[in-house]
Amino acid sequence: MRMVELIQKKRDGQALSPEEIRFIIRGYVEESIPDYQMSALTMAIFYKGMTPEETAELTMAMAQSGDQVELSFPGKTFVDKHSSGGVGDKTTLIIGPMVAACGVPVAKMSGRGLGHTGGTIDKLSAIPGFKVEMEQAAFLEQVNRIGISVISQTGNLVPADKKLYALRDVTATVDSIPLIASSIMSKKIASGAKGIVLDVKFGSGAFMGSLEEAEILAKTMVNIGHSLGRETVAVLSNMDEPLGRAVGNSIEVLEAVDALQGKGPKDLMEVSFELASWMLVLGKKAKTRDEARKILEEAVEQGRAMEKFLEFVAAQGGDTEAVSRKKLQIAPYKAEIQAEKDGYIHRIDARTIGVCAMNLGAGRETKESAIDLGAGIYLQKKSGDYVRKGETVLELYTSDLKKAGLVAESLKDVVFLKDAPLLNKPIVAKVLDQCCIN
Amino acid sequence: MRMVELIQKKRDGQALSPEEIRFIIRGYVEESIPDYQMSALTMAIFYKGMTPEETAELTMAMAQSGDQVELSFPGKTFVDKHSSGGVGDKTTLIIGPMVAACGVPVAKMSGRGLGHTGGTIDKLSAIPGFKVEMEQAAFLEQVNRIGISVISQTGNLVPADKKLYALRDVTATVDSIPLIASSIMSKKIASGAKGIVLDVKFGSGAFMGSLEEAEILAKTMVNIGHSLGRETVAVLSNMDEPLGRAVGNSIEVLEAVDALQGKGPKDLMEVSFELASWMLVLGKKAKTRDEARKILEEAVEQGRAMEKFLEFVAAQGGDTEAVSRKKLQIAPYKAEIQAEKDGYIHRIDARTIGVCAMNLGAGRETKESAIDLGAGIYLQKKSGDYVRKGETVLELYTSDLKKAGLVAESLKDVVFLKDAPLLNKPIVAKVLDQCCIN
Repeated sequence: MRMVELIQKKRDGQALSPEEIRFIIRGYVEESIPDYQMSALTMAIFYKGMTPEETAELTMAMAQSGDQVELSFPGKTFVDKHSSGGVGDKTTLIIGPMVAACGVPVAKMSGRGLGHTGGTIDKLSAIPGFKVEMEQAAFLEQVNRIGISVISQTGNLVPADKKLYALRDVTATVDSIPLIASSIMSKKIASGAKGIVLDVKFGSGAFMGSLEEAEILAKTMVNIGHSLGRETVAVLSNMDEPLGRAVGNSIEVLEAVDALQGKGPKDLMEVSFELASWMLVLGKKAKTRDEARKILEEAVEQGRAMEKFLEFVAAQGGDTEAVSRKKLQIAPYKAEIQAEKDGYIHRIDARTIGVCAMNLGAGRETKESAIDLGAGIYLQKKSGDYVRKGETVLELYTSDLKKAGLVAESLKDVVFLKDAPLLNKPIVAKVLDQCCIN
Repeated sequence: MRMVELIQKKRDGQALSPEEIRFIIRGYVEESIPDYQMSALTMAIFYKGMTPEETAELTMAMAQSGDQVELSFPGKTFVDKHSSGGVGDKTTLIIGPMVAACGVPVAKMSGRGLGHTGGTIDKLSAIPGFKVEMEQAAFLEQVNRIGISVISQTGNLVPADKKLYALRDVTATVDSIPLIASSIMSKKIASGAKGIVLDVKFGSGAFMGSLEEAEILAKTMVNIGHSLGRETVAVLSNMDEPLGRAVGNSIEVLEAVDALQGKGPKDLMEVSFELASWMLVLGKKAKTRDEARKILEEAVEQGRAMEKFLEFVAAQGGDTEAVSRKKLQIAPYKAEIQAEKDGYIHRIDARTIGVCAMNLGAGRETKESAIDLGAGIYLQKKSGDYVRKGETVLELYTSDLKKAGLVAESLKDVVFLKDAPLLNKPIVAKVLDQCCIN
């Protein structure tokens, strides 16, 4: 087999065979196939796409390119969740304890944030003492003992994806549905998930701009899961506006604490319950989404979700006192953005808020940037709310007063007001499970 | 300027600016732009093409990437010729002396053959004593003294093209019209040509399979020439069957000697006169193609073309006695392919003949292969001829009897016979000069 012929085959729109895909991934990881051939191939894939069979094979070949975690919990089904990234997305902090409280094990390896989107590991780091690094054995032991652990990704998990993603990033071949889908799914497969719940966001703050694009990505991922024998469900949710009210690290943890007690913002509660419901269904704790939702609501009402969260924080060395008293460190300087006129809020652009929160110190511009865990933006008002001129819409938190001024300037037009009320749009636009995929 | 953004720009079908193209070529030669970004870009160019402006800019940027020869001959216009490669193509050996005999200087840097196509330098090497390597100064001195010199490409001419071609070869991005056109034209521009005559072949033995494809390539190259202020003419000629009767090295030189005396095969004479005529027109020795042709026919009839060839051979150390007596070394073993039935020959496939001649030892499979200058195939019959069963159509020459057997076997079906006579098709299908290009 010669790589140049495989590039040509894909270039001319033909499908690669399973053997050819395995040859490519093996050769690339072993460095017998150089970057310059791989980047020509990924550009050809950008234009010509991949069949569902090719995409599933690519996913499996990548998943098998390094360590494969065998997470099995006696008598339980291990379900993993993946979010495609957004602004103010603290759902893992909420769903994890909720689901664990209902008996579905949560063993999650998460990432740090980059650019305008945050990362679960950064948020957990805002809890004093919380340890995000753990040996594999201790990680598994904790899940078996209390039903939940969330740690930072470690080890040689899917090296093919690491190498390929770095290459795609510098060769303008990131935006390819089969490559995005196989990148995400290979990591879930390699970490041993038997069921996978995908949170695919669309809108200005998401990777996918439109519902249509998000749906194509979601279908591709659900198909991969199905092909590889993993029950997979995708929830498509709107990310035109930040999820919930808090965007940052400490302030998102505080909002998660509210949500775990049933007191979170409506959109956040909705997305969290939807995702958690599907985790219960895939984890065989409920037959239907509606049955699962009842179980989850009970766990929240009875305080078991919050208890599980505190148990989880304690197990990883975090200060439960600080969490339950909501005493996390918030950045010292505060600025406010007021409404410039009366009206109904129709939009508070998610990407702008994400970028501004990053600029206030809450996120990383590059992988090397330091982060200010106490910085962020709080949305006093959300879309649909009526505001009067001069009312505070946004609160900015930062440790750097100069940044606050600059960011406030760029937030001037972020609140989009109209005289007419906003028609209510559901935050969860669609759910795709295997039975609805063609 | 960031390369990843330029790749994305081209990926999305936008044209690159002159500054961007220069940045890319400079960076690639200086190695600040790695192969893996360049191959992603060339794959994007494969799909999205380049505008005429981009292609001309790319050509110029490549031409200026290394040494640039300033060939100027007092009172004369330096016209260069390029052939896109074919089987049995010995036109340089014929046109060179013809044109030089008419006062247009010929200063040609040629290549060696590869695959099923031969190279001028190999053919000249079949003349005992002939030196194909020469210092720049001696090369120019010879052109000034006798009007002609043909040497092997040397020096740091168009390093960007060398590097880029090697990359395209292993990333399935060779077949891109703007990349092919700029590769060819950059070398002509860098070697100082003021006028350029392009011999673009189409058909089974050529790089371009159809006249339509060849015409697109030809137009692209003529446009580049025009944009860069070089008078350029493209002659499109058929390469479904080998040009002339001889395919090899020694035997092609012998056929060229016949042609220089007006006794070459009809198709070879036709293509040679056409190309030479345009060289005279571009070299300001004639106003029209027809006027040029008369001048050339006189030079052949009066023996001046052949005299010039012998002068040229002598100047580069070649054995003129061997040439004029036609005593070049021919391989010792001979095999014959006979007609299997009576009929008119409709086709003797050029590519098959080229590959078979290579397998007999006349060509190189890889750059490192050794060559048997005496090996080759001679077409006793050509398309249009009527043959009777058992008549010899092809003669095979080789130093390796075993090869003769294998090649004879694979030549079994190469002669395509029909009962009906063949309608005459002109060998020169079309001529494109600047006035006919949109």
